[in-house]
Amino acid sequence: MPSILLTDISQDVWVESLAIGPSDLGLPMDSDWSIVKRTLRGGRRHGVDVIEIRGGALDFTLIPTRGMGIRRGSYRGDRLGWDSPVTDGPVHPMFVNSAKNGGLGWLEGFDELLARCGLESNGAPYSETSADGRQTIVGLHGAIAGLPAHYVSIDIDEKPPYPITIEGRVQETRLFGPHICMCSKIKTVPGSNRLTLTDVFTNLGDSACDLEALYHWNFGPPYLGAGSKFVAPIKTLVPRDARAVEGLSAYDVYRGPEPGFAEMVYFMELFDRSGETIVLLQNPAGEKGVALRYQTAGLPAFTLWKCTRGEREGYVTGLEPGTNYPNPKPFEKSRGRVVSLEPGASRTTETTLEILAGSAEIQKITSEIASIANGRRPQIHPGAVEPFCNV
Amino acid sequence: MPSILLTDISQDVWVESLAIGPSDLGLPMDSDWSIVKRTLRGGRRHGVDVIEIRGGALDFTLIPTRGMGIRRGSYRGDRLGWDSPVTDGPVHPMFVNSAKNGGLGWLEGFDELLARCGLESNGAPYSETSADGRQTIVGLHGAIAGLPAHYVSIDIDEKPPYPITIEGRVQETRLFGPHICMCSKIKTVPGSNRLTLTDVFTNLGDSACDLEALYHWNFGPPYLGAGSKFVAPIKTLVPRDARAVEGLSAYDVYRGPEPGFAEMVYFMELFDRSGETIVLLQNPAGEKGVALRYQTAGLPAFTLWKCTRGEREGYVTGLEPGTNYPNPKPFEKSRGRVVSLEPGASRTTETTLEILAGSAEIQKITSEIASIANGRRPQIHPGAVEPFCNV
Amino acid sequence: MPSILLTDISQDVWVESLAIGPSDLGLPMDSDWSIVKRTLRGGRRHGVDVIEIRGGALDFTLIPTRGMGIRRGSYRGDRLGWDSPVTDGPVHPMFVNSAKNGGLGWLEGFDELLARCGLESNGAPYSETSADGRQTIVGLHGAIAGLPAHYVSIDIDEKPPYPITIEGRVQETRLFGPHICMCSKIKTVPGSNRLTLTDVFTNLGDSACDLEALYHWNFGPPYLGAGSKFVAPIKTLVPRDARAVEGLSAYDVYRGPEPGFAEMVYFMELFDRSGETIVLLQNPAGEKGVALRYQTAGLPAFTLWKCTRGEREGYVTGLEPGTNYPNPKPFEKSRGRVVSLEPGASRTTETTLEILAGSAEIQKITSEIASIANGRRPQIHPGAVEPFCNV
Repeated sequence: MPSILLTDISQDVWVESLAIGPSDLGLPMDSDWSIVKRTLRGGRRHGVDVIEIRGGALDFTLIPTRGMGIRRGSYRGDRLGWDSPVTDGPVHPMFVNSAKNGGLGWLEGFDELLARCGLESNGAPYSETSADGRQTIVGLHGAIAGLPAHYVSIDIDEKPPYPITIEGRVQETRLFGPHICMCSKIKTVPGSNRLTLTDVFTNLGDSACDLEALYHWNFGPPYLGAGSKFVAPIKTLVPRDARAVEGLSAYDVYRGPEPGFAEMVYFMELFDRSGETIVLLQNPAGEKGVALRYQTAGLPAFTLWKCTRGEREGYVTGLEPGTNYPNPKPFEKSRGRVVSLEPGASRTTETTLEILAGSAEIQKITSEIASIANGRRPQIHPGAVEPFCNV
Repeated sequence: MPSILLTDISQDVWVESLAIGPSDLGLPMDSDWSIVKRTLRGGRRHGVDVIEIRGGALDFTLIPTRGMGIRRGSYRGDRLGWDSPVTDGPVHPMFVNSAKNGGLGWLEGFDELLARCGLESNGAPYSETSADGRQTIVGLHGAIAGLPAHYVSIDIDEKPPYPITIEGRVQETRLFGPHICMCSKIKTVPGSNRLTLTDVFTNLGDSACDLEALYHWNFGPPYLGAGSKFVAPIKTLVPRDARAVEGLSAYDVYRGPEPGFAEMVYFMELFDRSGETIVLLQNPAGEKGVALRYQTAGLPAFTLWKCTRGEREGYVTGLEPGTNYPNPKPFEKSRGRVVSLEPGASRTTETTLEILAGSAEIQKITSEIASIANGRRPQIHPGAVEPFCNV
Repeated sequence: MPSILLTDISQDVWVESLAIGPSDLGLPMDSDWSIVKRTLRGGRRHGVDVIEIRGGALDFTLIPTRGMGIRRGSYRGDRLGWDSPVTDGPVHPMFVNSAKNGGLGWLEGFDELLARCGLESNGAPYSETSADGRQTIVGLHGAIAGLPAHYVSIDIDEKPPYPITIEGRVQETRLFGPHICMCSKIKTVPGSNRLTLTDVFTNLGDSACDLEALYHWNFGPPYLGAGSKFVAPIKTLVPRDARAVEGLSAYDVYRGPEPGFAEMVYFMELFDRSGETIVLLQNPAGEKGVALRYQTAGLPAFTLWKCTRGEREGYVTGLEPGTNYPNPKPFEKSRGRVVSLEPGASRTTETTLEILAGSAEIQKITSEIASIANGRRPQIHPGAVEPFCNV
């Protein structure tokens, strides 16, 4: 398996740029793919490293500088991602201050298909008071999306179907704080309609530490539109607040863009089969969709974010499997939803993004979701309720 | 018109360095000018891009990395700008945290001839409390001077007098926030004594948004000195506070450097003629000066900043046309001085900096200012007064 | 004396990389040394400039990007420094926000052998309230470790023993704030067991300004271990707080690594001879040690930091000569321990790090320390006491 080391600070390895395809590795040309690593220049993206994977059908761009997030992608010409008002991204972390705007500074860099949230905390900002009385803000969604990878490598399997794996390692650590190392692997088979993201979070410290990890997968058109639907094997659904209650009767259907639309958020528990569950977003015509298939053991909490604002201010929905719900961490901790990692212990998550083309593929996934639910009906709470929400 | 694209993130265009003059474009050599684009290295300026325009008589340096500010210039050997205690600038935005020092962190990067203030807010810092009680500081003078341009181009007209135009575009945006794009053009004719700055601020979002823009033009010696004078067609003048009242009787005359001098600030409304007004700073001998000529429709508020501290701690005056006075934004908003831009709408400002050499040129401008006032006397308030100041 | 200018922003001098040894300068090869200047890539160290000095016996790495700190070193194969949980450093200042985590953000970049603390303030974080009521946090240990040098040069003496001197200049300044320039020189003789650090802090402003400077020298194994000892000519010793009292009876002996160990801190006044004092850390076997020899006039306060946590979370001790104790600055100021520099005035500090190999060398230094104390016994306070601590 040819392996290309792009970054390894322990060996002073750094590859400034790279462009490879099958012929560079002596692989048959019927395996149609290419990988480009380069550094973006200009605006707030200046200095951001990206790895562009062109897989034939599915293309996507990884961002080592932003914690191995996924910038955006496309599948047979359909865009994966959304139109963020942050139009000059991916934004370099040096331009993001999480404490700004009441702890919402993270939003100044938010434009990804996948933004990882965590690792010491994720979710809504909150104030923290030190033992001697100083107040500081813990910002929205934590630090990981602003931490650059200290190790990046590419592996290409020499045997058909020639799967490509990109590995990145990011650490979140400080003296007197947690020391979590994330080892992230993204794997795709050229020509396929999917990628699989496997993250291993390891406590490298000597004491137990907290872990919150949430996968903020974000989609706009063409998958999102007026009449798009959300499908999942829902066990429990809780509207986060009064605003979410307003849209509760149509929680699984999307509206078109509405300038000034206030977000609606739903917390869920999903049924699984052999530990696996699936969520689906399908377009209004029911012939295009994106599905996330993942293990609920690692990611027991699911959050649906409906943010159908104007097209130029963020028309988007978030499908968000997580270790927890994106409430302020102290609330999640008090409800037992923050992972505690013993020294040397790891937590693994695995998520597969599948892109579906044609009503047959949609129906197949819909059936699979139905069979996971297996006739069980969702319990839908009429309002925010403990232990999901701070009521 | 030969046009050179230096930066355009939408096309992945980035020019690392450039040095051109008339002969490079096949223009006659009697048009004496040069343009250099380069990246500064070392200290807090590391990584800052500058465009140095040498126009024959007037030279100046633009800073795309700092929101298209103007670092400093010179006119026939006389320095335009001031001696900031920030002596290792232009400071890269990554070294500036606006929330530091009670919201005065902006000052750690402040050393320009022109520092633009805005765009979501400018003026004095203030505390903001989120709906759920988190306090954060909105820092002095806003974000724009810390945002790098995502588009930069140079245009040189092939026809005499071969005017040079530099265009830069900067955006200030985030999810749930404003989305303002500034398109800034700076134009000068080689050999001339002036440059014209035209900024168009456009709301690219789907909802109305606020705009505050203030042009912090800063001058030290040789234009500023003991006995230098400020001349303008003043309609109304208000001392900002008790400190400004102390200097009110000589508001238009400057003192020499005084270590520890506390700033005096005056808010003004100016008369205009056909929408245009002029302010002048002339040196003690009355034979050198700098004048700003601008449209009051776009910039109705004028602020005079007298900061005649010691020479090594900031001996400087600011001539500051703005959409508003540099009070905390909530005060300005409550007094109706914050621009509201509808979706797609724009606000344009235009300011010309003219450098005057010789008493004849000074007298000509002084006469022009007098004719704008046209015999009308200024209303000078004896103290801070509504709606200009928070009394 | 061949001098090599690496960085000088006043002359636009910048050397991207450098690798030299005696033969490059026509010096005899029996002087065995080399100097490499390069820029680190990847992770949070991306863009950090380092100067690696290999002196034959003593090697060490300077960090111009982090205020001329000393990253780490080695002496005849023994590591100088410690294993910080920050394992991907030296961290670029753009990734450090001092206001984070209740003002402990500085710790996100803390991994050095020598981290300088200051210059406007050092010590524990505290809240500051502006005249008009805005609260901000002044972060732990100040700004200097996050400010890049604007001037760096190397001097190599052509005459035996060919001492090498690296000079770096860093300034901490802003409008309405202090303007301190630090000129730091680090000198070593190839083949020797020592380096001398001489810092000159000069007030370049027009008004008197505060100065706090503290040298956070940090050591882990092999010098630190269970049974390592601290030796110094102690005049007065004060445990900082109740936690330090717990370890008071064995303040001069170290324990092995203990996960979760809470730091113990001791404030001291030391005896001197002709203005010079010495502190020593010796390993458990008493045959390896590191000593700091310095002038007490410039650095009257000494702090011992015992942080014998788990090996992967920071097993380290700090020997910290300072102008002051690392209490919040307002406390230090009220107790008269903040230096006030008049305009143009300077404060100089000089510290020599000596690495000791063999029990004979240890005994020699121990004797020297004893002769400085000259039979005088330390006054050991049983608890925190004024004016050292805020009791």
